[in-house]
Amino acid sequence: MLEHGGRLRAAALRYGIPESEWLDLSTGINPDGWPVPPVPAGIWQALPQDDDGLTAAACAYYGTTRLLAVSGSQAAIQSLPSLCSPSKVVLVAPSYAEHAHAWQRHGHRVVGVPADEILHIDDDVSVVVIVNPNNPTGKLFSRDELLCLHARLAARRGWLVVDEAFMDASPEHSLASVCPRPGLILLRSLGKFFGLAGARVGFVLAEEEVLSSLAEVLGPWPIAAPSRYVAALAFRDTTWQRAARGALPQAAQRLAELLRVYGLEPSGGCTLFQWVRCEDAANVHQQLARQGVLTRLFEQPASVRFGLPHDEAQWVRLADALGRIAR
Amino acid sequence: MLEHGGRLRAAALRYGIPESEWLDLSTGINPDGWPVPPVPAGIWQALPQDDDGLTAAACAYYGTTRLLAVSGSQAAIQSLPSLCSPSKVVLVAPSYAEHAHAWQRHGHRVVGVPADEILHIDDDVSVVVIVNPNNPTGKLFSRDELLCLHARLAARRGWLVVDEAFMDASPEHSLASVCPRPGLILLRSLGKFFGLAGARVGFVLAEEEVLSSLAEVLGPWPIAAPSRYVAALAFRDTTWQRAARGALPQAAQRLAELLRVYGLEPSGGCTLFQWVRCEDAANVHQQLARQGVLTRLFEQPASVRFGLPHDEAQWVRLADALGRIAR
Repeated sequence: MLEHGGRLRAAALRYGIPESEWLDLSTGINPDGWPVPPVPAGIWQALPQDDDGLTAAACAYYGTTRLLAVSGSQAAIQSLPSLCSPSKVVLVAPSYAEHAHAWQRHGHRVVGVPADEILHIDDDVSVVVIVNPNNPTGKLFSRDELLCLHARLAARRGWLVVDEAFMDASPEHSLASVCPRPGLILLRSLGKFFGLAGARVGFVLAEEEVLSSLAEVLGPWPIAAPSRYVAALAFRDTTWQRAARGALPQAAQRLAELLRVYGLEPSGGCTLFQWVRCEDAANVHQQLARQGVLTRLFEQPASVRFGLPHDEAQWVRLADALGRIAR
Repeated sequence: MLEHGGRLRAAALRYGIPESEWLDLSTGINPDGWPVPPVPAGIWQALPQDDDGLTAAACAYYGTTRLLAVSGSQAAIQSLPSLCSPSKVVLVAPSYAEHAHAWQRHGHRVVGVPADEILHIDDDVSVVVIVNPNNPTGKLFSRDELLCLHARLAARRGWLVVDEAFMDASPEHSLASVCPRPGLILLRSLGKFFGLAGARVGFVLAEEEVLSSLAEVLGPWPIAAPSRYVAALAFRDTTWQRAARGALPQAAQRLAELLRVYGLEPSGGCTLFQWVRCEDAANVHQQLARQGVLTRLFEQPASVRFGLPHDEAQWVRLADALGRIAR
């Protein structure tokens, strides 16, 4: 299994700063997530029910007619490769590492290519996986580019898998509205935009055959009933969604400008993080960590990802820490 | 996928009685489950962490040193068969149907035998699966019987899988304290005794090799963070556990006596349900359903399972409905 989480704990140990004193910008999770109300006791007691309203609420939110609720998009990432016979799979490199890991685990031949090459694949490629916008680079493909690629893959009964984990703030770029379409598989999640990473709720938008095979692999009751309850409410809260879609791009712009002021020009990003590619990324990461500011360091290519601060105190603290970096 | 749940909804449609008006005794879930407190907002936001205290709390509760938290014991039931090469698997019939379904799905040869034959298996059997106490019959094997069977299986590198979903009220019969032991795999759940079926939290107690293989198959973050939080608190609430262990056997005895009074002598049961085998089981089930009392009907053998009523009004209603059955 790939290494995940526990980064804050490890940093606390390494830098001798208690966990509670960190400014944790190491994730791409909305720091001002959807406010979860109390969950009625009865929801905890009974087995989750498929017809509890979650699917309808999700279809309305995504603007589609067919989807499968899964235990976070991670559940789909690790199960989709079991539905195809071993084949050649192309992904963008760098990107979210769980995709490559899952396809390799199931015996597929996985090839990572730069983002500017992924639209021009060879004829022997059966599956293309794209995180859109990409994590950590922020690279966003247009709907037209992806639909063109999808048409080529679908013609040979291949798959285009698009992980839209960071798409919620810009739904106009999503392919959700053209689903279901044979050979097109969309992954969505409530972890990032809604800030509900703990709930473990995600969705797969795909043709019926893929959804039913996936449902069989995942088995009954993969999602906790309180998570289903909370997710359905979050989907129906269009007022909160509108406000978040207004606020997040402003925060993202503020973060990009702040980084720029301190000589860390973002190479990319999206509404929930900024990505700074620089030769001394490890140095930047370490000097921030010494001041209790946790970022996410990538080695290949050398880069640092910054999540959004939550409130003014956190913005000030980040600016202060950036100002003290010696490079 | 096997048919599950939705029974109340189906019964409501079939008998023309609104869902809210039913006395639902169709499950074996404690009707007086652990009282769930509010979950702090931060728990919903962050990814679940393996070192959040749940594992330690579970080890203390089960009296063991090694276990893996899974998304309900169902997650283990459906994944364990993928860890063995196709072999001969023997289970008790009748029993919880998901076990046979999962082993068959992974290409194993599954043989169902009566409970009184399962301790005397042939030499070609690699895996034995026993639900203890059994659902729906209530049949309870002693620790000595199971350890003897385990020793025979382990000698040929086979597995004994014991599903202890209904064991919490009688921990003296559990094999948890002898785990980990090579070839012994125990499944536990918070669904029944704690009444937290919606939380989707279960545990596998087994040797390290099995746990790490299973963890790899299940992937990261299979359990929602609020479910982990609630489960850890429930494990630490020994006062509630003591009270429940006192109350449930009394309720079970009361249910058995009530059924007896109305000519439905239980053939078996445990603290959370009573099982009545009778030729006219379908008739009993249907006549109760017409009065808005939902039980679980089994066809093979013809039998009805009764869960526990929750309060005095429900006890009175059940007695009244039983009194009106024409047989």
